[in-house]
Amino acid sequence: MRKYRLMSPGPTPVPEKVLLKMADTIIHHRTPQFQAVLKDVNAKLKKVFQTENPVLIFSSSGTGAMEASVVNLLSKGDKAIVINGGKFGERFGEIGRAYGAEVIDCDVTWGNAADPAVVEKLLKDSPGVKAVYSTLCETSTGVVNDIKAIAKVVSATDAVLVVDAVSGLTADEFKPDEWGVDVVVSGSQKGLMLPPGLGFLSISGKAQKLVEGSDLPKYYFDLKAALKAHAKDDTPWTPGVSLINGLDTVLDILLAEGIDEVVQRHARLANVTREAVKAMGLELFSERPSNAVTAVKVPEGVDGAALVKKMRDEQGVTIAGGQAALKGKIFRIAHLGYMDEYDTISAIAGVEIVLNQLGFDVEFGKGVGKAEELLG
Amino acid sequence: MRKYRLMSPGPTPVPEKVLLKMADTIIHHRTPQFQAVLKDVNAKLKKVFQTENPVLIFSSSGTGAMEASVVNLLSKGDKAIVINGGKFGERFGEIGRAYGAEVIDCDVTWGNAADPAVVEKLLKDSPGVKAVYSTLCETSTGVVNDIKAIAKVVSATDAVLVVDAVSGLTADEFKPDEWGVDVVVSGSQKGLMLPPGLGFLSISGKAQKLVEGSDLPKYYFDLKAALKAHAKDDTPWTPGVSLINGLDTVLDILLAEGIDEVVQRHARLANVTREAVKAMGLELFSERPSNAVTAVKVPEGVDGAALVKKMRDEQGVTIAGGQAALKGKIFRIAHLGYMDEYDTISAIAGVEIVLNQLGFDVEFGKGVGKAEELLG
Repeated sequence: MRKYRLMSPGPTPVPEKVLLKMADTIIHHRTPQFQAVLKDVNAKLKKVFQTENPVLIFSSSGTGAMEASVVNLLSKGDKAIVINGGKFGERFGEIGRAYGAEVIDCDVTWGNAADPAVVEKLLKDSPGVKAVYSTLCETSTGVVNDIKAIAKVVSATDAVLVVDAVSGLTADEFKPDEWGVDVVVSGSQKGLMLPPGLGFLSISGKAQKLVEGSDLPKYYFDLKAALKAHAKDDTPWTPGVSLINGLDTVLDILLAEGIDEVVQRHARLANVTREAVKAMGLELFSERPSNAVTAVKVPEGVDGAALVKKMRDEQGVTIAGGQAALKGKIFRIAHLGYMDEYDTISAIAGVEIVLNQLGFDVEFGKGVGKAEELLG
Repeated sequence: MRKYRLMSPGPTPVPEKVLLKMADTIIHHRTPQFQAVLKDVNAKLKKVFQTENPVLIFSSSGTGAMEASVVNLLSKGDKAIVINGGKFGERFGEIGRAYGAEVIDCDVTWGNAADPAVVEKLLKDSPGVKAVYSTLCETSTGVVNDIKAIAKVVSATDAVLVVDAVSGLTADEFKPDEWGVDVVVSGSQKGLMLPPGLGFLSISGKAQKLVEGSDLPKYYFDLKAALKAHAKDDTPWTPGVSLINGLDTVLDILLAEGIDEVVQRHARLANVTREAVKAMGLELFSERPSNAVTAVKVPEGVDGAALVKKMRDEQGVTIAGGQAALKGKIFRIAHLGYMDEYDTISAIAGVEIVLNQLGFDVEFGKGVGKAEELLG
């Protein structure tokens, strides 16, 4: 018997009471009964997203909500700046190009955070930019961007700021309304502790004006239809009834803990992990590390793919490796969602055991000891 | 205490063992463990769809899969014939127009089935049509189209035939490969007995050639990416892990019963319902009634909206009313998915009770008696 420990940056573990809530009777979505659920969920989503803007729900992965933020804000040939410092920044650019936008890449070395001054300069050099797209936490590198500073720069212009908070939401500090973020995109399978299958998008008045003028083709992800339905606590297409039932319970759990407290929990687990791996003699990969996931450089001489595989297949701890150019070069431990101190300690212990198996000498208990010291 | 009886044409009830399967531990999707699940599901999906073509899975509602069938097969300005005899035929046309296709409507009076000879004539009159779109069961009218005859006409041309089998799959007889259907679109929350949240699309070699040439913009629903991932039992975006776990169990249940047997069960329940409502003195709405759902005319003098509301709020039986122009004019009882004889009897009994409450004189037990006679 070996328990399954999911410590990847999505999907994340789902609380048992949420799993059971999703197993409740499926009710019809066009009824006062389900409308009451949606009304309640819509109100609680605003609190969790820390916004007064409507938060729309899609039956899709986070990528679907990203697509919605492109095809509804831009028109053919519109200029958009994409902060590209990892796989998910890159994805915004791919979507923009697929739909015929003029994408201006703000290239950031993977592992670094975007420089708000560079974004400011790009905006000055390219008049008429309609939108700036950034990740909050760039999951592929474990970097959290300084959205507060970027928002200051963007909100001084006519452009809107779109933030992919798929993995950052509830993990990293994020105050969209206070900071001036127009559109927030997220997904269910990260800090929201649900299975994959729901995408989210909150949208400001400024961004809704762009929706009115957008001429890119869309149907399933049409925000005009979604906003119209949302105003009546409805959805344009059949909603994911079971996932939304689970969401109802998740939002209660998060709001009972308090969003600031949830973020602090993530910060504590991330800090403990960073200090523990440093105590083992490892190096962090990210210049500005997110609380959602800690990216660690695979030490010289160690097979990074083998480390992740042995952690998963022998220790039962599913962490993530590196993606694209980072394959084999980093490993990533998440602190995302339904995770606590002893999950973190288990992951650190697992890494110590496996690193030793792979020929990298770590004193047993070195990292875990550091974690205990910080948690005690 | 009043049980919740879901007898609408989607969502439909989910078997308890499927609800519990979906409450199983969430595992990471990029692992050999989940790849094995997908491999197994992909093989079983082909059997349930009765096709040798790949069946792709989307995290979306059925409408998302409909969009995929438009944006991947057509190019800007391409001609497509849409059989429009209800809300879902209409939707194909809306999607096509939203993306700039030249939609040729094959208008069918709501309640009637499409005439294959008319489709043949349209194809002759409009050379170069790329695709013909039809519903199998048009859920809004309860009509099943003669897809076998339509496929005979279409497959004699260069056009591909796309069939929306969202509500018809496993309910109506449907042999896509045998009949020459190129693309089948479906969803999880109907005959597949799952909550809403998964869309499906099977695609023939002939249609895959169109995908190669299509220039309409797409990203989330890009079939090239989906087919490439499918070949490795993977998905381009994070899949709906919990729903796919449930799907695994659903497919086992359906294949154990046998697809022909499942269709026969739907046929039996639909026939019983039709005869029972006729015995009550009511009239059927559909010219060519589907096994998925029975549409019945609301008798003169009865408030159709009140009938559906009283059934739901007082009798606990959720049936559907009419949509768009049919609002208040018909009511619809589904036979779809996890339903059996006594669910059908309950619905018929409920209708008898409520019709009497609404001033339409029905001898108690008249319809139920007819049902018993046919079932006994």
